[in-house]
Amino acid sequence: MAGVAVLAGGVGAARLVRGLVDVVPPDEVTAIVNTGDDMVLHGLVISPDIDTVTYTVADAIDPERGWGLRDESWQAMEALSRYGGVTWFRLGDRDLATHLYRTQRLADGVGLAAVTAEIARAWGLGLHIVPVTEQPLRTMITVAGDETGAAVLAAGVAAGEEISFQDYFVRLQHAVPVAGVRFAGADAARPAPGVLAAIAGADTVVVAPSNPIVSIGPVMAVPGMRDAVVARRDDVVAVSPLVGGRALKGPADRLLRELGHADSVVGIAELYAPFVGTLVIDRADVELADGVRAAGLRCVVTDTIMRDPAAAAALCHVVLGR
Amino acid sequence: MAGVAVLAGGVGAARLVRGLVDVVPPDEVTAIVNTGDDMVLHGLVISPDIDTVTYTVADAIDPERGWGLRDESWQAMEALSRYGGVTWFRLGDRDLATHLYRTQRLADGVGLAAVTAEIARAWGLGLHIVPVTEQPLRTMITVAGDETGAAVLAAGVAAGEEISFQDYFVRLQHAVPVAGVRFAGADAARPAPGVLAAIAGADTVVVAPSNPIVSIGPVMAVPGMRDAVVARRDDVVAVSPLVGGRALKGPADRLLRELGHADSVVGIAELYAPFVGTLVIDRADVELADGVRAAGLRCVVTDTIMRDPAAAAALCHVVLGR
Repeated sequence: MAGVAVLAGGVGAARLVRGLVDVVPPDEVTAIVNTGDDMVLHGLVISPDIDTVTYTVADAIDPERGWGLRDESWQAMEALSRYGGVTWFRLGDRDLATHLYRTQRLADGVGLAAVTAEIARAWGLGLHIVPVTEQPLRTMITVAGDETGAAVLAAGVAAGEEISFQDYFVRLQHAVPVAGVRFAGADAARPAPGVLAAIAGADTVVVAPSNPIVSIGPVMAVPGMRDAVVARRDDVVAVSPLVGGRALKGPADRLLRELGHADSVVGIAELYAPFVGTLVIDRADVELADGVRAAGLRCVVTDTIMRDPAAAAALCHVVLGR
Repeated sequence: MAGVAVLAGGVGAARLVRGLVDVVPPDEVTAIVNTGDDMVLHGLVISPDIDTVTYTVADAIDPERGWGLRDESWQAMEALSRYGGVTWFRLGDRDLATHLYRTQRLADGVGLAAVTAEIARAWGLGLHIVPVTEQPLRTMITVAGDETGAAVLAAGVAAGEEISFQDYFVRLQHAVPVAGVRFAGADAARPAPGVLAAIAGADTVVVAPSNPIVSIGPVMAVPGMRDAVVARRDDVVAVSPLVGGRALKGPADRLLRELGHADSVVGIAELYAPFVGTLVIDRADVELADGVRAAGLRCVVTDTIMRDPAAAAALCHVVLGR
């Protein structure tokens, strides 16, 4: 085979990619990673999804938290909190080195794709981890009103206010209703070097079990991406991020509802129908397989919960059809 | 008394200021600190002299190194070195928090003087630590040729090349000869809020025992500073950074020679004569007291080596004439 290209968000995608490198030679795997979650904080350029994929494939991720490094220390954050600094986005001491390195290399004029490759190489990884774009792409969330106004008020935001993804996801713990999602900068973005070639040349294009709205959404919003994936539709296999109608992690189910989609594998299938040929769903959703097919996709039913790398590898065998 | 204003560089100045707050009420002390050493590294705004003064007065400085925090950990630097990142400028984990905080606050639109005050307050300090300017000021070093070319070659720079102060001071360990010093940005700089008032209102203006060329030089290069200090000349007391013709730390003696000045307290006196009324010199230089007076300054001879806060306090009593 010529390779696998994965459209990837954070934790779920990282586990799938971790499984893939056990199933196919790592240098045949290209993870095309969402950068809509990226932020500049403390002057540092932070790419949370790229780092989650990198750390997970390196078996260096903290398994409890699902983000950041295992055996991490927190001296910088503790000292920062004594200053009254911004500490809601937790950065461990060793994790900080990733952001220091990325920021300095970008300031040196190196592109984000090359820096990401340097970091993956330093972790000894053989796969290709590529940002979907090197231009700034920022997922912005418009807060909706809630019935009593209490949740929004408690969060210190206003209905109609637009906030950054990390404000929504980490600072507010996605505890406010969402009226809309926008990918700022998408119009001026271009796929990063290697992205379109990886999609065009892959035997299989995998849509990872990531949030369809705020992880896969920004990836597909980069001009050129949608056409590239649509052209491969017959070879595009998505893994549902919902199991029994619930996201394993994060607000995917809630976001789908809030934005008018069905919060089920059928909703996923309807969203993905234009560019995905096959949807892999969990056994818990077997009774919805016909609904997936009715949306125009092939449907494969298997165990999708990646409790460990072995489960991830087993899922990948199914995804790749072997 | 209405207060003491100190023109300050790094280690020597920090020890003097540490002594001052034992001798006069801290809120009557204003340290006006050199920012020509400042740099942006890894995207972080780093103000080494400000931090050295802050940490020293807080009794948090590492006493062996003379920079950074005591009981520091180095997880971020170790991880950064695994990436092949820039590690010649060592940033401890807790020290990093200072730079994260400063950088974020500046990005928030807060001025460097206010941020510096916030940091000092977080350390529980009662004195005023003020950057000489909030505008970018960068001490630039032009490398000279050496006789054989070996030192310059070994450093990987070229004679005539202009490098940043930290490149010269930290990365190259000031092991290359210097042809010239320039304070980039000085023309557009203005004294930071509070600086001119502190000088005008002080009973005594102290020129700390800092490098006259690259610590006091940039402070005096900010437009308005020289006139403000000259106007107080009779009340300006400098402490010689040379003892027996040698700098206690750093390249002050060598820089004086390389730039055509006498590398002695007489050379200091000649440099400072336009704006300093009194020079405090060490007992080791007592035979040069007449040379200092010949340059037009009063001369006070005492012990100037600040081995500990008590020695610093004793020196401060002499400096303040009581």
